[in-house]
Amino acid sequence: MSNSLGKIFKLTTFGESHGPAIGGVIDGCPAGLELDFDAIQQELERRKPGQSKITTQRKEPDQVEFLSGIFEGKTTGTSIGFQIRNTNQRSKDYSHNVDVYRPSHADYTYDQKYGIRDHRGGGRSSARETANWIVGGALAKQLLKDVEITAFTSSVGTIFLDKPYQDLDFSKIESNMVRCPDPETSEKMIEKITEIKKEGDTIGGTITCVMRNVPRGLGEPIFDKLHARLGQAMLSLNAVKGFEYGSGFCGAEMKGSEHNDLFNKDGSTKTNLSGGIQGGISNAMDIYFRVAFKPVATLIQKQDTIDSKGNEVEMMGKGRHDPCVVPRAVPIVEALAAMVLADFYLLDKVSRV
Amino acid sequence: MSNSLGKIFKLTTFGESHGPAIGGVIDGCPAGLELDFDAIQQELERRKPGQSKITTQRKEPDQVEFLSGIFEGKTTGTSIGFQIRNTNQRSKDYSHNVDVYRPSHADYTYDQKYGIRDHRGGGRSSARETANWIVGGALAKQLLKDVEITAFTSSVGTIFLDKPYQDLDFSKIESNMVRCPDPETSEKMIEKITEIKKEGDTIGGTITCVMRNVPRGLGEPIFDKLHARLGQAMLSLNAVKGFEYGSGFCGAEMKGSEHNDLFNKDGSTKTNLSGGIQGGISNAMDIYFRVAFKPVATLIQKQDTIDSKGNEVEMMGKGRHDPCVVPRAVPIVEALAAMVLADFYLLDKVSRV
Amino acid sequence: MSNSLGKIFKLTTFGESHGPAIGGVIDGCPAGLELDFDAIQQELERRKPGQSKITTQRKEPDQVEFLSGIFEGKTTGTSIGFQIRNTNQRSKDYSHNVDVYRPSHADYTYDQKYGIRDHRGGGRSSARETANWIVGGALAKQLLKDVEITAFTSSVGTIFLDKPYQDLDFSKIESNMVRCPDPETSEKMIEKITEIKKEGDTIGGTITCVMRNVPRGLGEPIFDKLHARLGQAMLSLNAVKGFEYGSGFCGAEMKGSEHNDLFNKDGSTKTNLSGGIQGGISNAMDIYFRVAFKPVATLIQKQDTIDSKGNEVEMMGKGRHDPCVVPRAVPIVEALAAMVLADFYLLDKVSRV
Amino acid sequence: MSNSLGKIFKLTTFGESHGPAIGGVIDGCPAGLELDFDAIQQELERRKPGQSKITTQRKEPDQVEFLSGIFEGKTTGTSIGFQIRNTNQRSKDYSHNVDVYRPSHADYTYDQKYGIRDHRGGGRSSARETANWIVGGALAKQLLKDVEITAFTSSVGTIFLDKPYQDLDFSKIESNMVRCPDPETSEKMIEKITEIKKEGDTIGGTITCVMRNVPRGLGEPIFDKLHARLGQAMLSLNAVKGFEYGSGFCGAEMKGSEHNDLFNKDGSTKTNLSGGIQGGISNAMDIYFRVAFKPVATLIQKQDTIDSKGNEVEMMGKGRHDPCVVPRAVPIVEALAAMVLADFYLLDKVSRV
Repeated sequence: MSNSLGKIFKLTTFGESHGPAIGGVIDGCPAGLELDFDAIQQELERRKPGQSKITTQRKEPDQVEFLSGIFEGKTTGTSIGFQIRNTNQRSKDYSHNVDVYRPSHADYTYDQKYGIRDHRGGGRSSARETANWIVGGALAKQLLKDVEITAFTSSVGTIFLDKPYQDLDFSKIESNMVRCPDPETSEKMIEKITEIKKEGDTIGGTITCVMRNVPRGLGEPIFDKLHARLGQAMLSLNAVKGFEYGSGFCGAEMKGSEHNDLFNKDGSTKTNLSGGIQGGISNAMDIYFRVAFKPVATLIQKQDTIDSKGNEVEMMGKGRHDPCVVPRAVPIVEALAAMVLADFYLLDKVSRV
Repeated sequence: MSNSLGKIFKLTTFGESHGPAIGGVIDGCPAGLELDFDAIQQELERRKPGQSKITTQRKEPDQVEFLSGIFEGKTTGTSIGFQIRNTNQRSKDYSHNVDVYRPSHADYTYDQKYGIRDHRGGGRSSARETANWIVGGALAKQLLKDVEITAFTSSVGTIFLDKPYQDLDFSKIESNMVRCPDPETSEKMIEKITEIKKEGDTIGGTITCVMRNVPRGLGEPIFDKLHARLGQAMLSLNAVKGFEYGSGFCGAEMKGSEHNDLFNKDGSTKTNLSGGIQGGISNAMDIYFRVAFKPVATLIQKQDTIDSKGNEVEMMGKGRHDPCVVPRAVPIVEALAAMVLADFYLLDKVSRV
Repeated sequence: MSNSLGKIFKLTTFGESHGPAIGGVIDGCPAGLELDFDAIQQELERRKPGQSKITTQRKEPDQVEFLSGIFEGKTTGTSIGFQIRNTNQRSKDYSHNVDVYRPSHADYTYDQKYGIRDHRGGGRSSARETANWIVGGALAKQLLKDVEITAFTSSVGTIFLDKPYQDLDFSKIESNMVRCPDPETSEKMIEKITEIKKEGDTIGGTITCVMRNVPRGLGEPIFDKLHARLGQAMLSLNAVKGFEYGSGFCGAEMKGSEHNDLFNKDGSTKTNLSGGIQGGISNAMDIYFRVAFKPVATLIQKQDTIDSKGNEVEMMGKGRHDPCVVPRAVPIVEALAAMVLADFYLLDKVSRV
Repeated sequence: MSNSLGKIFKLTTFGESHGPAIGGVIDGCPAGLELDFDAIQQELERRKPGQSKITTQRKEPDQVEFLSGIFEGKTTGTSIGFQIRNTNQRSKDYSHNVDVYRPSHADYTYDQKYGIRDHRGGGRSSARETANWIVGGALAKQLLKDVEITAFTSSVGTIFLDKPYQDLDFSKIESNMVRCPDPETSEKMIEKITEIKKEGDTIGGTITCVMRNVPRGLGEPIFDKLHARLGQAMLSLNAVKGFEYGSGFCGAEMKGSEHNDLFNKDGSTKTNLSGGIQGGISNAMDIYFRVAFKPVATLIQKQDTIDSKGNEVEMMGKGRHDPCVVPRAVPIVEALAAMVLADFYLLDKVSRV
């Protein structure tokens, strides 16, 4: 019931981390889009675990197989099925979890809701699902070819990248393990994560995303405001606790005379505290937003917890886990943003007679 | 296309601030719910402008008329139509805006998207729409009779209510004009707003909302996580720039060993940084979240702007406007939260065979 | 949950026959459509009871009031709310029904489903709802300005109009009480209905609808085939028991070599047993379909029935009812067809990059 | 955009007949349903081509692989992904069609709509898609365990099974190649199809479906009437030209005094011309409906047609095709009916407080 994102450009997904495969159906992608399959696979590589010594050492090949909707390299307008086989799952790593509720995970709530749960690797609640989103997002990016969507790590714990995004060199994002475009800050972040990893602990952080060259008029008033759908998409990502766009929470401390974005004659604005969206609709200025991630709940430390019978037990993470999820979430944030934007891009085509 | 909220308990709305009426249709409200009409009207009174000297002096009677779906005081399971006539609009107040794009309003983007716009009082982008939400939310509250949903002003500009919500006396919220339960803080907030109003300026703020006695199991995995839908609903509210729940943006600065909520034997947790939601599903702990509002864009000051032809013009708000929208938004936040919760409450009834 | 028709061009309705008003919200109508309000009202007049001596003598003024979404005579792209007040309901006519289940009506099933029911005039199950559809359909017709949608009575009981539609003069449809374009047949039909009315009985019939100048490419494969959505819409009409398009049930008796429509060089076909739709998608040939209506269930005769306690009782219709619903359903069939087509017309705009 | 069926119990499908696989996602199946996998596979066997000498000799193994949503044999409440690999497609059979528009197929309209088309075996418009529906329907049947859904061939060309369904022995349906429960009639049908096949021609027919033990209260008023959704589902099936339920088109010839179903004291009815549905809602009487199929468009005869450049060409079917699609469509009709019913079964759980 909740496995679909979008109204026109619509991704419906399935898959548990330790089942035979994950995958999905992309419906509503217009016909005639010539696909760059390498670019899609490249996005999957960016998300993949085991990319660096500060991320989990699980290897997930994440090879997407398209099953339909594409003919001679182009979309045909029919639904695009795809799957990514699960090949490297070590279910034994999770056998100790059969009956244990890991703190701040979804184990307890899934059991309460459904009365049954695939406990292996988190089952449906596993972040493995996000590989599906990468596929959908990669297609969306290709549909929106003139739009640039760039996300990066803007904080790890209390280490903040405190420069305005306009002063950053986005070409440096992929040059370091934390995906922070500022070399000095990225070094500190890597140090911090390395230290945290040694403790068997984890740490939170934030991602900033900037969208440039978004056409005017995307977004629908009232309940499908562009930023509301971006927020919903970002809050769908595991571990996300907050979303803000434009001036965000800082804007709540300001006066109107400071906050208003005055117009230039061409309709652009002198400032952009609005974050590229006014009344829920894009105004062609940069869209930017920030997403807060709590620390990963799985620790390589002993923790007290309970099992499904209410017995107190002690547990310790044994799987291969990320000490900080933020660097790997960067391409996922971009993918979600791209899908939301693609949907509104198509919806806007029916705005006028 | 974007005028509906919810999947089962679904509100579809219409209305411009200066048309004959606003209203909507509530579909999916179960049959047999005995309605308390006074309670519904009472919620509308809480939202109404002109309640105090720090809010706009517009008087909007906001009398809801139910048109269907109710028989002998009970819901019948059929769609519930309602309207609220617009009786006190002074269109002349807005005649100066015919062609002027107010900074940081929706005027420019609506024109870009649709090529036509009802400029009077903001038309469809007016916050008058929120009266419709109050009606939907009031019904939702009655459906969820055991759940307590309480919102309050937690900051105005840089004046913060810095006590944990557990230490607050919610019965005091309605006792003061800013709807802040802490007498000392509320006084400072009122002072601030009064001062801002004198300047013809406006100011932002935040609202915190707490939901108690929410049943376990509400929320759907993946794209309809309970907090993702709450976020989308809150971000639909005019002027909202950010949403966080549980530990929120602070959580992004923490370590996993600090952030994890350890279990008690009964499945409750010793701490509640999760904010009552794990894996997108309620765990019966308190749900709490915070919403950031930018300052109102309409100033009673001169501002430079442009008109639809790109001419530079000077404008000054003449209508009756709020210097701070936050106090009046308190019941709206509750209404939106109630509708989201009602929807998931019904959806959960089909979770198991 | 079931009060909406369409995906983009979407009508959501409410209203009981004896409540204060019926009405609805039209969402997704593109901005900039100049409306002809007289044409809308004219369609309502065509549906109205009391038009002739063979229809019910109830007078329903059916004056539509638009509440939003229209500015200076044009649609603005925002949701269009409307209502039609109920002014002539005589609830007393129905007081004898409080507790009685009328045979072949919805009384029993509504009670079984909801446990509560507005018994007056059939409540939500009343055909009064169709006035809402007329409003939505009238807008859809104006959006589809080049498409001609024409319905007419093609049988009453066993009196059939047995000419191909191509041989009929559609300008004569509105010239007679039964809305049959063939003068000779219409006379027989009127005679039949008059006779049936004298008996206090009712009679069924069929309506044929022809849509000309439909653009190529409307309809979506698989579950939203153009004819499947037309069928669903028609089967939503009270008393409808069957739907067929193109060759219909006769086609099931034919051989492929007889049934196939061979192409002309321009893509048009020499025959049109396909009924203008192939693979669920329009091919620019005429679309035609036929709808079967059972006889009205309310008789002005004594009938044995039961009440809600299971007591056997005798009842007799006292309200003002149609002996044959078919003539009045003609404009409703057109309205539904127009809404379905408008929806696919808009959906098709996003079929290709 | 049109690849989904249902609101709660929702099937989303993908797949072309000559791509790597077809498949889908079943969302909204409640948790805790113990699945009988043999029964699912058995339903696929019933649909499979090559079952008898009067059906196509293509062999499609149709082995379904479930990819998610099931744990230890039970549904978990998460989305159920599945695929059926395409293993026996002979694309060369279709190479002659690259550029040719087959009469009364979807070739021309797909090209007009999308500007691109997978011509092999009909691509997305192939009836191979229905294997996906069988999977969804098989799960739905297991969810509705007390409901009996039985379809059978009720006519082939002009050979009609003219007994009321109550007089038929449903256990004989699967005992003959045409799936007609009456031995005498089935023999005639087989003869007819054999003769037609020899001519390289095809023939239409009808299927009747009966649903017993349907609970009271399923179906939603207005646009989601139970029969309207059944009609939409059946009209989604390739080659279907008509749908009727209860008295159907015959009902249009009757008088109200003949047609009304009088009540027994327990709410059942003495007759059942309503077909088990009143006001769009089931009344616990048998639901029965009839579906009309045109003859298959692919003939093993020469036909004149055009290619995509408008040249006149001659073509002749070379693939392996059914002379009459009706017998193989019998399990598909059941599957569609089961999915519609499962959806309403779940929707009804939220009808009352």
